[in-house]
Amino acid sequence: MDKINETIKTQLAHRTIREFTDQKIPDDVFELLMEVGRHTATSVGMQACSIIRITDSDLKKEIAEVCGQEYVARAPELMIFIVDQYRNYQIAKEKGYTAETAKDMDRFFQSFTDACLMAQNIVTAAESLGLGTVYLGSILNDSEKICELLKLPEMTFPVLGLGIGYPNQNPMKKPRMEMKLRVFENAYSSFNNYLDEIKDYDEEMKTYYDLRDPEKPLGSFSDQVVRRYMQSNPRRSGILNVIRKQGFDLKIKQS
Amino acid sequence: MDKINETIKTQLAHRTIREFTDQKIPDDVFELLMEVGRHTATSVGMQACSIIRITDSDLKKEIAEVCGQEYVARAPELMIFIVDQYRNYQIAKEKGYTAETAKDMDRFFQSFTDACLMAQNIVTAAESLGLGTVYLGSILNDSEKICELLKLPEMTFPVLGLGIGYPNQNPMKKPRMEMKLRVFENAYSSFNNYLDEIKDYDEEMKTYYDLRDPEKPLGSFSDQVVRRYMQSNPRRSGILNVIRKQGFDLKIKQS
Repeated sequence: MDKINETIKTQLAHRTIREFTDQKIPDDVFELLMEVGRHTATSVGMQACSIIRITDSDLKKEIAEVCGQEYVARAPELMIFIVDQYRNYQIAKEKGYTAETAKDMDRFFQSFTDACLMAQNIVTAAESLGLGTVYLGSILNDSEKICELLKLPEMTFPVLGLGIGYPNQNPMKKPRMEMKLRVFENAYSSFNNYLDEIKDYDEEMKTYYDLRDPEKPLGSFSDQVVRRYMQSNPRRSGILNVIRKQGFDLKIKQS
Repeated sequence: MDKINETIKTQLAHRTIREFTDQKIPDDVFELLMEVGRHTATSVGMQACSIIRITDSDLKKEIAEVCGQEYVARAPELMIFIVDQYRNYQIAKEKGYTAETAKDMDRFFQSFTDACLMAQNIVTAAESLGLGTVYLGSILNDSEKICELLKLPEMTFPVLGLGIGYPNQNPMKKPRMEMKLRVFENAYSSFNNYLDEIKDYDEEMKTYYDLRDPEKPLGSFSDQVVRRYMQSNPRRSGILNVIRKQGFDLKIKQS
């Protein structure tokens, strides 16, 4: 399609990169990535998310342990995006307002959204410069531990980790299901038989996993769905308890 | 800086566009944006977010009413990104698994993150094609109403709205605070006096608002923080009650 420009070419070529060369990311490149982060859209202009850049190698190892992914410790750049209502709460306090509404869950979700938008903007910029990236949702395997490790104050919370570096691998692109299963018009629409709908995709994923690692065939997409759902971790599913511990007011009504 | 390529140039030029020309977005452009969405990183490959594309003009008006922003009804393309654990839950059920863990809050947050990453990827692609975009966090003014309007089934939830079209305005770029206030090394670091730190930024924002609309001067950034925190809406802050109503298991321990 003639609409495909360099930006979109980068976006369509996205793959997760987990192995990086030893090359450091130059300072001016890192700063440019932060500039892109700074220019990302932010809910009602509040800029209520922040980044913790991890440069300490022992800390990297501790985070890698939470993630259960040893390669995390080897990422040339590692950053954790966080919900941050702390900064604006202090600003309001300094102006003489107690602003307990800073602790409301809609603020939390605004910050959480800001953090994700910023992360993706930085990922696209990094990939456009030939860098590789890996998202680390696995920091939430133990969000309480991450709060401790990063000394996160009240009204902050970890959202997502991100590793960046120069790629030292050339993995295949992971197939995705068709968008007709994911884009609906005016209302949600269900399918009568999902396994039927994803039959080809299931096959495609099976082949992908077989080729990726013949020693460790992971089966089809639907096999993976079941496998993932069977894994349950109370430290993960109890995330709201940690969010409350960080000072947010859940505002749950008795059910 | 010589590192600035076309992609990054687009990202650094980001502004919210609220007024669009009548020109429709061509089908092939819309499809390309969906392709970019499809290629976005997704937590453990689960692709657990979806898009509701709003084409019905009455429905657009109802959504605009929830948002409290009449221009929403006039966006040539309007889409709502949603948490979607429903699809994979059905897939697991069809394979004979009840998969109640689909309702856990860590799945919810995985989906929420997926939805935000996809939205930002689509925004960058759209802007690279000369389109303008406006995020609509305001759909969460009444998330329950949005669930009704879009007929969202259990284990789905609205995250973020997005309007796209050809720009019919040329707004100034909104100034942002310095990244030294937002990027920390290895641990969160507080400042002794935030109002001091943002003094120049506060002035810059005041000038920005004055120039943007001399009839409606909004004051400094810190004024805005206070103003926003003073606004509290029980339908917004009670968001977790609607998330629970949509079938998610909050897993809150007695405090």
